[in-house]
Amino acid sequence: MALLDETAKGVFIIAVTPFGDDGALDLESADRMTDFYLERGAAGLTVLGIMGEAPKLTAEEARLFVRRVVARVAGRVPVVVGVSAPGLAPMRELAQDVMADGAAGVMVAPVSSLRTDDQCYAYFEGVAQALGPDVPFVLQDYPLTTGVQLAPQVIQRVIDNLPSCVMLKHEDWPGLSKITALRKASDGGKRRISILTGNGGLFLPEEFSRGADGAMTGFAFPEMMVGVWNAHAAGDTARAHDLFDAYLPFARYEQQQGIGLAVRKYVLAARGAIRSAALRAPGPKLSPLDIADIELLLKRQDARLKELG
Amino acid sequence: MALLDETAKGVFIIAVTPFGDDGALDLESADRMTDFYLERGAAGLTVLGIMGEAPKLTAEEARLFVRRVVARVAGRVPVVVGVSAPGLAPMRELAQDVMADGAAGVMVAPVSSLRTDDQCYAYFEGVAQALGPDVPFVLQDYPLTTGVQLAPQVIQRVIDNLPSCVMLKHEDWPGLSKITALRKASDGGKRRISILTGNGGLFLPEEFSRGADGAMTGFAFPEMMVGVWNAHAAGDTARAHDLFDAYLPFARYEQQQGIGLAVRKYVLAARGAIRSAALRAPGPKLSPLDIADIELLLKRQDARLKELG
Amino acid sequence: MALLDETAKGVFIIAVTPFGDDGALDLESADRMTDFYLERGAAGLTVLGIMGEAPKLTAEEARLFVRRVVARVAGRVPVVVGVSAPGLAPMRELAQDVMADGAAGVMVAPVSSLRTDDQCYAYFEGVAQALGPDVPFVLQDYPLTTGVQLAPQVIQRVIDNLPSCVMLKHEDWPGLSKITALRKASDGGKRRISILTGNGGLFLPEEFSRGADGAMTGFAFPEMMVGVWNAHAAGDTARAHDLFDAYLPFARYEQQQGIGLAVRKYVLAARGAIRSAALRAPGPKLSPLDIADIELLLKRQDARLKELG
Amino acid sequence: MALLDETAKGVFIIAVTPFGDDGALDLESADRMTDFYLERGAAGLTVLGIMGEAPKLTAEEARLFVRRVVARVAGRVPVVVGVSAPGLAPMRELAQDVMADGAAGVMVAPVSSLRTDDQCYAYFEGVAQALGPDVPFVLQDYPLTTGVQLAPQVIQRVIDNLPSCVMLKHEDWPGLSKITALRKASDGGKRRISILTGNGGLFLPEEFSRGADGAMTGFAFPEMMVGVWNAHAAGDTARAHDLFDAYLPFARYEQQQGIGLAVRKYVLAARGAIRSAALRAPGPKLSPLDIADIELLLKRQDARLKELG
Repeated sequence: MALLDETAKGVFIIAVTPFGDDGALDLESADRMTDFYLERGAAGLTVLGIMGEAPKLTAEEARLFVRRVVARVAGRVPVVVGVSAPGLAPMRELAQDVMADGAAGVMVAPVSSLRTDDQCYAYFEGVAQALGPDVPFVLQDYPLTTGVQLAPQVIQRVIDNLPSCVMLKHEDWPGLSKITALRKASDGGKRRISILTGNGGLFLPEEFSRGADGAMTGFAFPEMMVGVWNAHAAGDTARAHDLFDAYLPFARYEQQQGIGLAVRKYVLAARGAIRSAALRAPGPKLSPLDIADIELLLKRQDARLKELG
Repeated sequence: MALLDETAKGVFIIAVTPFGDDGALDLESADRMTDFYLERGAAGLTVLGIMGEAPKLTAEEARLFVRRVVARVAGRVPVVVGVSAPGLAPMRELAQDVMADGAAGVMVAPVSSLRTDDQCYAYFEGVAQALGPDVPFVLQDYPLTTGVQLAPQVIQRVIDNLPSCVMLKHEDWPGLSKITALRKASDGGKRRISILTGNGGLFLPEEFSRGADGAMTGFAFPEMMVGVWNAHAAGDTARAHDLFDAYLPFARYEQQQGIGLAVRKYVLAARGAIRSAALRAPGPKLSPLDIADIELLLKRQDARLKELG
Repeated sequence: MALLDETAKGVFIIAVTPFGDDGALDLESADRMTDFYLERGAAGLTVLGIMGEAPKLTAEEARLFVRRVVARVAGRVPVVVGVSAPGLAPMRELAQDVMADGAAGVMVAPVSSLRTDDQCYAYFEGVAQALGPDVPFVLQDYPLTTGVQLAPQVIQRVIDNLPSCVMLKHEDWPGLSKITALRKASDGGKRRISILTGNGGLFLPEEFSRGADGAMTGFAFPEMMVGVWNAHAAGDTARAHDLFDAYLPFARYEQQQGIGLAVRKYVLAARGAIRSAALRAPGPKLSPLDIADIELLLKRQDARLKELG
Repeated sequence: MALLDETAKGVFIIAVTPFGDDGALDLESADRMTDFYLERGAAGLTVLGIMGEAPKLTAEEARLFVRRVVARVAGRVPVVVGVSAPGLAPMRELAQDVMADGAAGVMVAPVSSLRTDDQCYAYFEGVAQALGPDVPFVLQDYPLTTGVQLAPQVIQRVIDNLPSCVMLKHEDWPGLSKITALRKASDGGKRRISILTGNGGLFLPEEFSRGADGAMTGFAFPEMMVGVWNAHAAGDTARAHDLFDAYLPFARYEQQQGIGLAVRKYVLAARGAIRSAALRAPGPKLSPLDIADIELLLKRQDARLKELG
C-alpha cells in the first residue's frame, strides 16, 4: 500500500466504528460502511479517531477493525489510523501494528498537558522519533477537545524539522487565519504539507478558499463534502456554497457536543451504511424528541436537494 | 422600571459596546444601536455580557454606558446587565449601581473554579444573598466559556430555593435535553422560570420547540431571531425554519471563536447600527480575506431572503 | 493470592519502574526494588501508577513487569496495579490480565473530563461493571493531576453502591476534612473501606490521626512512612512526628512537580534499590545544582536521624 | 515614596486583609498587622494579592485598605499592590489610584485563558502599555492557580522589551531551574530584574541558593523567612537550613489548598497581629480537629526553636 504523503487531497472520511445493539464489534458493518464511504467519493478513510470510539475498543478489537477496513479498501484509497495515546511506547506499538497491516499513515493529537511552545514542539519531535522515519503522520490540531493551542509557529517548526509529518488535520474552530499563515509560508518556499480540515465540515467553503487541500472529518452525508470539494476544485464557488448550504441545517445539528455521534450513527444506520446505530457504552442515547428533530431536518434537506438538482 | 420576572419571553439581544476607532466609548452609537435593536423587535436588551467587552471598560465607563442605554430604552423593554465578577462584593456593588440606574435585572455566570454540585449551588446561593431579594437575576449557564458544567439538578435546586433567580440563560452547546428536563419539572409543579437560549442562535428552532421562552444572544441580524420566535409562537414551524435557514450560513460564520465579535461589529457598522466596527484593544482585527468571506455570505443571504419573501 | 479487601492497613509503596540507562525495562532491578520495599516494611506494593511511568510502557512490557513483581513478592503482600485508561474496554482487558497474573486488586483514577456529581458517580459505576464483581478496585482521588474533584457525597455513593470498591487512595491535597467526613459515615454504620493516603507522604501524621488506615504513595525512604505508621499505631504520636520531621525537608524536595520522580530514582539508585536512576524518555534530567541540593539535604537528614536514634 | 525597581531584595510579605467577625473590613487591624510585619523585618509589603481576599473587597474598600497600609508604612518599605483583573481598563484604573495613594508598584498575574508563547508575551506587552512607563510592575508567575505556564523565554522576552517590569514573583512550584535560567541570562549581560519567590516559602533555601533576591509570599511567621534570608545573605547556609527546618512542619500545614489562609489568619490572630481570624464569606472555617493539628505543630515548633537558640 502506498504511504500517505504531502500531496494528499480531497475528502478523508472519519469513519465511525460499528457495533451491534449488544455492543459487539460489527465487522460486517465495517465492510458495508467502507463501501458506503468509497461509493460517495472518499479520497481516504480515517479510523480510530476521536469520533471512532477508539478508547472503547480493546487492543485486539482495534487491530481487527483496522485490518478489516484495510482489506475492504484493498488499496483503492489510503487508510489513516488514529494512534494518539498518553505514552509514546504504546503509540509506537499500535502504529507499527497498523502500518504492518496496511495503513498508509497515522494521526496524533497532542496530550492535554502541553502548554508552552517548546513543550508542544518537543512532544511532536518525540512522536516523530518514536514512530520512526518510515511512518508518515498527521498532526491533529484540535484545541476544543485537547485543550492544547498550537501556535502557527509551532506547526511551522514541525513542518520545517520533522519530515515524517506530512499532513495537518486542521480543526482550530475554525482558525481560518491559521490556514492562511501556513499557506503563506509554503508559498514562500517552506515545505508544503497537506492541510485537511475538520470542524465537522461546518466551514468547508471558507477553508477551501483559504488553501486547504480537502477535509478530514465525519458527516453522515459524505457526498456533501465530496461535492463541495469537487465544485471548489472546478472553480465553481457558487455551486460549492449552494450544496453546502443545503446540508448545513442538519450538519449543524450533527455537530452538537455530546450527542453528535449518536446523531451521525442514527442517520448512517437509516441510510444502510451500518446495521445498528448503537454506540458502545458509555455513550448517549437519542430521545424521541432528538429523533423528531432529525427527521424534520432530513425531510427539509431532501426538499432542498431536489430543488438544487 | 418594572423588574425582570419569570414570565419574560421573546428575544433579548446581547448588545455590543460601541467604541470609536480611537478606542473611546461611543455613547452616541449606544443610542443608535439601542434604536436599531428595538426597531427590529427586541423584547429586551442585555448589556455588559461576555460579548459586550465588559472587562475592557472602567467602572465609570460601564456605568455611563448602562445609563445611556437605559435612558434611551426609556422603559419600553427591560435591560439586563451582566455583573459576573471574581468576587461577590464588587458584584453586589455593580448590581446595586445599575439597578439604581434603572436596570430590570442582572446576569451572573459561575466563576470558573467550581466543580462539584454542592460548590456550584453554594456559589449561586451566595450570589442571591449578596444581591439581596430585590434584585432579580439571570443564571448564565455557559460551560464552553466558563468551564463549569451545571447539572440539571443544580439548576433545579437554584430554582427551588432561590426565588430571585427568575431566568436561565441556557447555552450548554446546545443542551437541548437540559431544556426538556427543566420544562418537565415545571410542568410537574415546580416553579417555572424563563428560559432564554444562547449559542449565538444556532439552535433556535430546536430550542424553541423544546420549551424555551425565547433567546438571549447576539447576532448582527436580530430580525432573524425575532422572526423565528414569532413564527414559532404563531405555530408556523415551517416559516421558523425557512427564516432560520436563510440566515444560517452567515450566523455560523459569525459564531467563530476569536473573531466572531469582530464579524458582528463589522456588519452592525455596515448596517448603520454603530459608527465604528472597532473592538477595544486587545482584540482581533478582520483580514481582507475575512471581509471577502463576509461580503460573499451576505450577498447570498440577501438573495435567499428575497426569494423567501 | 488473596484479594485486596476493606481491611487493608499500613503502607503500600507506589513502586517506580526501573529502566536501564539505555531506556530498556530493567527486570532484574524490579526484583531488587521489590526486596528493598519489602525489607523496609511495605504492607503492599502498587505498580503502574502515575509515578510508575506506566504510559511509557508497551502493553507487553507492562505485563512483564507486573508478573516479575508479583513473582518476587510471592504472596507476602498484596500487589495493586494501576489500570486507569481512557476507555473501559482496555481497562478491563488490562485488569483481567493482571488479576490472572496474581495481582490483588487494581486502581482507577477518573478520566479528566468528568465534572458533575452524576458524571463522576456514573463513571465509577461503569468501571465497577466493566471490571466485574470479582476484581476489587481502589478509587484514586487525585484532583491535582486529574482535574476532577470528587465530592465526599460522590465517594460515599460509590462506597454505598459498589461493593467491589474496597479502598480509597486519598490524595486531595491534602483534604483532611474528606477523611473525617468519610470516617464519620462509617462510624455511623455505613460500609467502612480502607483509606490510604497519598500526597507524597507530606501529611502523614495528620492523615493518620484523622482515621486513615495507612498510606499509598512513593518516597525514596519507605522506612519513614512505615515508621510513622507504626508509631501512630502504637499510640506514640510524638515519635511519629519526630520521625516525620526528620525526613520532611527531603520529602518536600522530592515532591516537586516535574522533577520529583527523577529525584526519587536518584536516591533509590544511590541506595541500591535500582541499578539506574534513568527515567524513560520523555522525562526530566537532574542538573548538577539539583544533585547538590539533594546531597546537602541527605547529609542533614542523616545527622538528624543519628540524633533521633 | 520611592518606586519599586530591579534592585529590590529581601522578604516582601504578602499581607492578609483583616476582617472583623462580622465581615467588616478591620482597618485598625491593618495598622497592627503592618507594624507586626515591619517589626519582623519585612523589606516590603504586598497587599491585595491572591491570599489577600482581594476579590471580596469592593473598589472603595480596596482603596481604603491600601491607603491605610501605605500611611502606616510611612515610606519605610515599598508597598506593592495586586491589580490583576480580567480587563486592562479596570487594571489601569486601580493601578493609577493606588500609585497616586503612594504604592511603590503593582503586581499582575496572567489571565487564565493564555496558552501560546506569543499570547502570553502579548498579554504583558498590553499590561505594560496600559499601566504606562511610570508604573513599575511585578510579573506574577503562578501556574498552579492561573493555569498559565510561562516559558523562561517568554519571561526573558518581557525582561528584554518591557522596562517597567522590574520584578518576577516566581512561584512555579517550585521551578528552581527557571531561576537558574533567568540568572544565567542576566549574568550573560541581559537586564537583571529582581526575583522574589513564592510557594509559601517551602523552598526558600534552594531558591536563594539559585540566585533569588528574596521572597514574596505569606507565612504566619515572617521572622522565619527574614531569618533564612539573612543567614543566606551572610553566607551561613547551615543556619539558613536549621531555621527553615524548624518551621517547616507548620509551614507545610499552612500551605494546604483550601484552608491554608484560614490557618494563617488563625495564627496571626493568636499572635496579636490581627484582631479576628475571620475570612470574609465565602471562605472555609477551621474545624476543632484542624485547630488541634495547629496547636500541636506550634508546640513542637516552639520546642525546636528553643533548642535552636
